[in-house]
Amino acid sequence: MAKVSNVPTIRRLPGYLHLLKELKEEGQETVSTTFLASEMQIDPIVIRKDLTMTGASGKPRTGFVVADLVEAIENFLGWRTTTDAFLVGAGNIGSALLGYSGFASYGLRIVDAFDASPAKVGTIVHGHLILPMDKLPDRVATVKARLGILTVPADAAQEAADLMVAAGILGIWNFTPVKIKVPSDVVTQKEDLASGLAELSVRVKLREL
Amino acid sequence: MAKVSNVPTIRRLPGYLHLLKELKEEGQETVSTTFLASEMQIDPIVIRKDLTMTGASGKPRTGFVVADLVEAIENFLGWRTTTDAFLVGAGNIGSALLGYSGFASYGLRIVDAFDASPAKVGTIVHGHLILPMDKLPDRVATVKARLGILTVPADAAQEAADLMVAAGILGIWNFTPVKIKVPSDVVTQKEDLASGLAELSVRVKLREL
Repeated sequence: MAKVSNVPTIRRLPGYLHLLKELKEEGQETVSTTFLASEMQIDPIVIRKDLTMTGASGKPRTGFVVADLVEAIENFLGWRTTTDAFLVGAGNIGSALLGYSGFASYGLRIVDAFDASPAKVGTIVHGHLILPMDKLPDRVATVKARLGILTVPADAAQEAADLMVAAGILGIWNFTPVKIKVPSDVVTQKEDLASGLAELSVRVKLREL
Repeated sequence: MAKVSNVPTIRRLPGYLHLLKELKEEGQETVSTTFLASEMQIDPIVIRKDLTMTGASGKPRTGFVVADLVEAIENFLGWRTTTDAFLVGAGNIGSALLGYSGFASYGLRIVDAFDASPAKVGTIVHGHLILPMDKLPDRVATVKARLGILTVPADAAQEAADLMVAAGILGIWNFTPVKIKVPSDVVTQKEDLASGLAELSVRVKLREL
């Protein structure tokens, strides 16, 4: 597997994209690195490096063409084509993600949602019919979904991940606190609320010193 | 403000905590760095460095006492005392967080929830009465809440953050895609789903090369 050496850059790209789309909506046609730096509170040198990675090129006086920059970033992230995803676990976080309208602009479409609880199976959550877990292998194969979103309780995480991997999912977006074990050719991305809160807690504590 | 130079360590601590609590429940009294390294898939040298930062000390043959290690990490993060937080924006993500039972183990208690929409004010979401935004300053002052959780739509983010800062909130946990501007003595922590998805998208794309 190719190594991702520029993770901080990749993680900053959606921030640029969000701002650039706002500018585009306001009718602004070009944007300077200086303006982006001031709005994003990021060093202009870092911004230039980040944007160069997407293949975008600015001009000395006018800066970047906003529409071109949006396209370059979206292409780099693969967000101009739609990626189908499955969601496993329709609890609080899972339901919130099913109702999240922002995914469309990231090229992500949740095509199916699954839950182990008979009480949830058959209900509709934000327009998605909740399917039983045993339908997962068939559905992944039929839809050819590449991504799985894992939002089950901690004690069900590994088992659900194993099922997703066996069904052929290539990448798992893991919202559980568990560090799931997967074969080396499956990509996992952990979304850890606890880590964010840990960082915030310590930073507020230090602020008070 | 003191500088936080060891953010990666801080972000890893909840992962250790989660595993250690499981071991504790299973009745395991001591744990070795080697075991932690294999379970967490982290280099033993990094683990030793991380745990040393919390003030915990292990013994050559027996390793760490699980209960002591849990206490050291929780103390370091300030999670053994309860921190009161306000939530602003009771939409999908906000409602999910109101229903998230895991916060208690992080010492976080959401005491009040606010929303700008008259349709939501007065409703109960996961046991929380949704209050109107104009009650926020009074409530923050009364409860002496230090943290605010920001879960409003993007176009309402800066205004809501300004209101929280004016009310005396010390730290804002920002779930919006907006990079909010706050005075330098207020801590912000951005929880960015888009960044996580960007990283996953690129890593799955590279895997397919």
